[in-house]
Amino acid sequence: MSETQRSLPFSKIALIGAGLIGGSWALAIRAAYPQVQIQLYDSLEAHRLQAIEQGIVHATFDSLEQAVAHVDLIILAVPVGALPDLFSQLIPVMGPDTVMTDVGSTKQGVIESAKEALGAAFCHFVPGHPISGAEKSGPLAARADLFKDKRVVLTPVAETDLTALEKVKCLWELAGAEVHMLDAAQHDRVFAAVSHLPHLLSYALVEELASRPDADLIFSYAAGGFRDFTRIAASHPTMWRDISLANREALLKELDAYSLKLDELRSALAKGDGPALLTLFQRAQIARTNWSSGLN
Amino acid sequence: MSETQRSLPFSKIALIGAGLIGGSWALAIRAAYPQVQIQLYDSLEAHRLQAIEQGIVHATFDSLEQAVAHVDLIILAVPVGALPDLFSQLIPVMGPDTVMTDVGSTKQGVIESAKEALGAAFCHFVPGHPISGAEKSGPLAARADLFKDKRVVLTPVAETDLTALEKVKCLWELAGAEVHMLDAAQHDRVFAAVSHLPHLLSYALVEELASRPDADLIFSYAAGGFRDFTRIAASHPTMWRDISLANREALLKELDAYSLKLDELRSALAKGDGPALLTLFQRAQIARTNWSSGLN
Repeated sequence: MSETQRSLPFSKIALIGAGLIGGSWALAIRAAYPQVQIQLYDSLEAHRLQAIEQGIVHATFDSLEQAVAHVDLIILAVPVGALPDLFSQLIPVMGPDTVMTDVGSTKQGVIESAKEALGAAFCHFVPGHPISGAEKSGPLAARADLFKDKRVVLTPVAETDLTALEKVKCLWELAGAEVHMLDAAQHDRVFAAVSHLPHLLSYALVEELASRPDADLIFSYAAGGFRDFTRIAASHPTMWRDISLANREALLKELDAYSLKLDELRSALAKGDGPALLTLFQRAQIARTNWSSGLN
Repeated sequence: MSETQRSLPFSKIALIGAGLIGGSWALAIRAAYPQVQIQLYDSLEAHRLQAIEQGIVHATFDSLEQAVAHVDLIILAVPVGALPDLFSQLIPVMGPDTVMTDVGSTKQGVIESAKEALGAAFCHFVPGHPISGAEKSGPLAARADLFKDKRVVLTPVAETDLTALEKVKCLWELAGAEVHMLDAAQHDRVFAAVSHLPHLLSYALVEELASRPDADLIFSYAAGGFRDFTRIAASHPTMWRDISLANREALLKELDAYSLKLDELRSALAKGDGPALLTLFQRAQIARTNWSSGLN
């Protein structure tokens, strides 16, 4: 038995939700630690069948109670909007010491609802967010290397049990991820800026163009720049509705800061102010080039 | 001699500007028709040296007059902002029947300045715009297959000589492109929507984030969605300043339509209106998915 295998902190895991993230994490854990037992609860029969077919889990249940019986970890891999109800449903059926973690893209709201619903068990909940995804979703999109060399952010609070935190951290590292700790409020601000806002901006552009009478003509001339800019507009609408609502305050601030910048740009354009446009474009180009060169 | 080779309508071509587009077109023409002679005028010595080294042209000149002497086609592959001056400089040195074409991303302004500067020679100017590019620029980024199966839009006006138009069309087809005709005003509206606006939006996001005190932290958590959304913010700032100014009217209209859509989205978010957000995201997702499936 290798060092890696001996260090696995859980022997039986309940996966709640076999989407892209949950499915990929399960595949990665199984690849790193074949002895672990993973059982799935997913309300969709198609997901349960696909999860078995894809080798994502060992067993599936259509009852939450059965799926979480005798497990030492529960992975909540559902959209953030589904978490509050799920916490309430888990309390009567889960073991008192079972560690829980989530993969939600926002953290303050999740922590609040966990605190409210879980009571004494709240200390065993480790809030998490893997920085990895794709516009595809569902078990068929899951892959064992989705988190390899990607960041995972954990946002523990004062009450979080340090042993539970350490175990969840270890599990993500087994999946190949690099684990970072952030304060939950800081997490939500940062991701409103680099992830949630771009999704809104991309959705808005595509919807605005699609609503025009000559949308077909317009789209027929769209090329590579449009393709990349709008790739995230093909993301899961329900998931992004939930994320937007869950991170509403931070996202509104980002949207307002961005609108101010657009106003500045519009004003420079309306005045024909070439130097102002050039300065803005140059600053952006330098920052983007530095970022993609890995300088940040 | 093959059919393709016999059909080449020009024997000696002056390329003005050895950037990505001009360089790639020259490479494509030479690959399809090795007998053609292409000579370059570029004000940058580095570009002239690289164009020779990369096999893009046969000869280079640091004088416009020498480069255009005895050619039957002049390809103006410079940023749209440089075209008005170039037209004026060409008139005293070019042959009276020399065909000219450009590759500018906007067309109405280019046509106006060509009409003003060229006089009787205006009928030999064929306004063009290849729908292909990359965030890279310069002769080193040029490649012979850049236009393969890509669209090229030509926007002739009433005065345009039909033989000149047919010859330029033929040349683009030799480079592997699919040639479409559009009215210049319609061209500018369509490209303001699918290309120029996304560039502005992407530049604005990166510049706004880069200007913050905690920009390094923010960028360090940016991932795949951000990468794609902001790829075009690494585009050539001078070129995009020129395009923005040249297509100012259409671009301002697009910016305003987009800002209205963002206001609608902000209002739904501020009210916590999940159904409105979901509807907008779903419409965008469907349109984006249809577009990328090639249904448009």
